[in-house]
Amino acid sequence: MNETHFADRLSDRCKEVGAAVCVGIDPVYERLPDEVRAGDRPDSAADRVASIQRYVRGVLNAVAPHAPCVKIQSACFERYLWLGVEAYFQTIREARDLGLIVIGDAKRGDIGVSASHYAAGCLGDSPFGDLNNAPGPDAITVNAYLGDDSLRPFLDHAAEMGKGVFALVRTSNPGGDAVQSLRLAEGRTVAESVAVMIDAMGAQPGYVGKCGLSLLGAVIGATKKDEAAQLRQLMPRTIFLVPGIGAQGAAVEDTRACFHPDGTGALLTASRSVLYAYEHATDMPWESAVRDAAIALKDQVSAMFR
Amino acid sequence: MNETHFADRLSDRCKEVGAAVCVGIDPVYERLPDEVRAGDRPDSAADRVASIQRYVRGVLNAVAPHAPCVKIQSACFERYLWLGVEAYFQTIREARDLGLIVIGDAKRGDIGVSASHYAAGCLGDSPFGDLNNAPGPDAITVNAYLGDDSLRPFLDHAAEMGKGVFALVRTSNPGGDAVQSLRLAEGRTVAESVAVMIDAMGAQPGYVGKCGLSLLGAVIGATKKDEAAQLRQLMPRTIFLVPGIGAQGAAVEDTRACFHPDGTGALLTASRSVLYAYEHATDMPWESAVRDAAIALKDQVSAMFR
Repeated sequence: MNETHFADRLSDRCKEVGAAVCVGIDPVYERLPDEVRAGDRPDSAADRVASIQRYVRGVLNAVAPHAPCVKIQSACFERYLWLGVEAYFQTIREARDLGLIVIGDAKRGDIGVSASHYAAGCLGDSPFGDLNNAPGPDAITVNAYLGDDSLRPFLDHAAEMGKGVFALVRTSNPGGDAVQSLRLAEGRTVAESVAVMIDAMGAQPGYVGKCGLSLLGAVIGATKKDEAAQLRQLMPRTIFLVPGIGAQGAAVEDTRACFHPDGTGALLTASRSVLYAYEHATDMPWESAVRDAAIALKDQVSAMFR
Repeated sequence: MNETHFADRLSDRCKEVGAAVCVGIDPVYERLPDEVRAGDRPDSAADRVASIQRYVRGVLNAVAPHAPCVKIQSACFERYLWLGVEAYFQTIREARDLGLIVIGDAKRGDIGVSASHYAAGCLGDSPFGDLNNAPGPDAITVNAYLGDDSLRPFLDHAAEMGKGVFALVRTSNPGGDAVQSLRLAEGRTVAESVAVMIDAMGAQPGYVGKCGLSLLGAVIGATKKDEAAQLRQLMPRTIFLVPGIGAQGAAVEDTRACFHPDGTGALLTASRSVLYAYEHATDMPWESAVRDAAIALKDQVSAMFR
C-alpha cells in the first residue's frame, strides 16, 4: 500500500524527470537484437522469455533516469502463457525497484466477481508467498464497454492501494471509429459519452489527488488530435495516457491538446520508437540507442511547454 | 488444427447432448466445499490452485455427459498469477479430453501486434514444448469496443485453426446500459450497431459453417430479454452466448428469443447455479449435486423447443 495518491506520485515523478512521458514496453521476440537472442533454442518458450527479460532489463535501466513511467504490454508476455506471466511480474518488480511508475497495459474488463478477480490479480500486490508476494503495477488499463459497475472493483482496489486505472476512451487505431465515433442522438460521440462517465466516476470523494487529478485516467490515442481538445474539456481532472506517436503515425506536437496549458494532465507514451531505436542506430550499443531515444522523447515533450 | 468448422462442431455436440447449454466454470476458492479445501495452507497460492483444480476436475467429469460446452473464466485463475494461468491451461486440456467444447472467457481486446499476441496466447495452441504444447480453448470471448480492426487478428487465428470468437455485444450487468444502451442519431443503440458490425464481420467467406452459423459469435446477456429478438434479427448467422440466468436473475424461459425457432443459434450459460449446486443439496455428494443441476439445465432448455 502506498501512502501517496497515484496522481500525486505520478505528477511528482514527472516534475523530477522534467517531462510527462512514458516508455511503452511491448517486446516482440523476433525484433530483439541478434546478440540478445544468441544461443536460444527456437522451440523453447523459456529461452525466448529469458531473452525478452534480458532485453527489457537493459531498456529499463537505460530509460529510468529519463522517463517517470513505463507501460508494460501484458499481451507480449501472455503470449508465453504462465512462463510469460511470471516474467511480466518480475519485470514489474524490476521497474518499480528502479523508481519507475509502472502501468500494466492489460486492457481487462469484466463484471461482478470476475472484475474483482482481475483487479486483485492484475492490479493488486499478491498476498501469497509462493507467488513471491509479487507487486502489481501502479496502474492498469481497463476497457469501459461493460459500463460503470464493471469499473468499480478496479477503482475500489486502486483507491485502497494508492494505485490508478486508465480506461480506454478513444483508441489510436483506425478501426476504433467503428464504435467510438458513432454519433449519439444527444449530439455527443460514444467516446465523448464514455468520457463524461469517466469524469464523473473519477470525481468521487478521495479519488482526486492534491494535484487536482484523479486516480481514474483515460487512454486517448495521439492519432485523434482533432478530438483531444473536446475530450480534455469533458475530463478536466483526468490524466490522459496518450499512445500512438512514432510507429503509429502521430507526432509529439499532435498531443498538445491532450495536456493542460501548463503541461500537466497527460502522459505521452512512445513504444516501438524507443524500444527498437537500435534498429536505426547501428553505430552504437543497443542500450545507448534506446537511452538516446528516451532522452529525445523527453526533450521534445518538455520543449512543448517551455 | 481442427478439420471441422467451429460452429459445426458446436452444433453437432449440442445435437448429440440434446440441448445447447454451457456450464460456466468460475471457481472462487472461498466457495469450494470444505472437504475440498481441507489441509490447505492459507497463505499458499499453490494449495488454493490445487484445490480449485481438484474441484473443477470433479465438475467437468460430472457435467461432461450433460453439456456440450464449458466456459472457463480466466479471471478466476489469473487471480493466482502464473500458477493460476498454468492451472487454467491444464483445465482446458482436461475439459477437451472429456470431449467438451471449451470457451475461454478471457474478454481480451487490444490493437495491432498486441491483439495478435492475445490471439496466439489466449486462443492458439502453444507451439512450445516447455509449455506442454498447451492447447488453447476452442473459442474465446473478446471486447469489441476497439473496433473491427482490433478483432481481425482473433478472427484470422480462429479461422485458421477451426476455432471461434465471441464478441461482447450486450452484457448481463446493469451498468452495461451506460455505454451499450446509448441511443445513436441513426436510431439504433450502441449495442445494436456493434451487432451490425459483428454480423458483417462474421459473414466473411469461410467464416460461416455448413450449419449456417459463423465462427464469430456474440455475448448477449439473458437479463436483456426485451432486446434479444431485435439482436437476433440483426445477427441471423451469429451464435449467441447467453450468460445471466440463475444467480444473475434471468430465467431459462427469458432466453427464448436468443434462439432461432428450431432451438439453434444460441448457447445458454449457467455458472454459479451449477458450480455451487452443492450449497443447496447437502444430502448428497457435491459431484451429484453439480451433475443434477447440469441435467436440470439441459432438460429445461430442451423442453423449450420440444
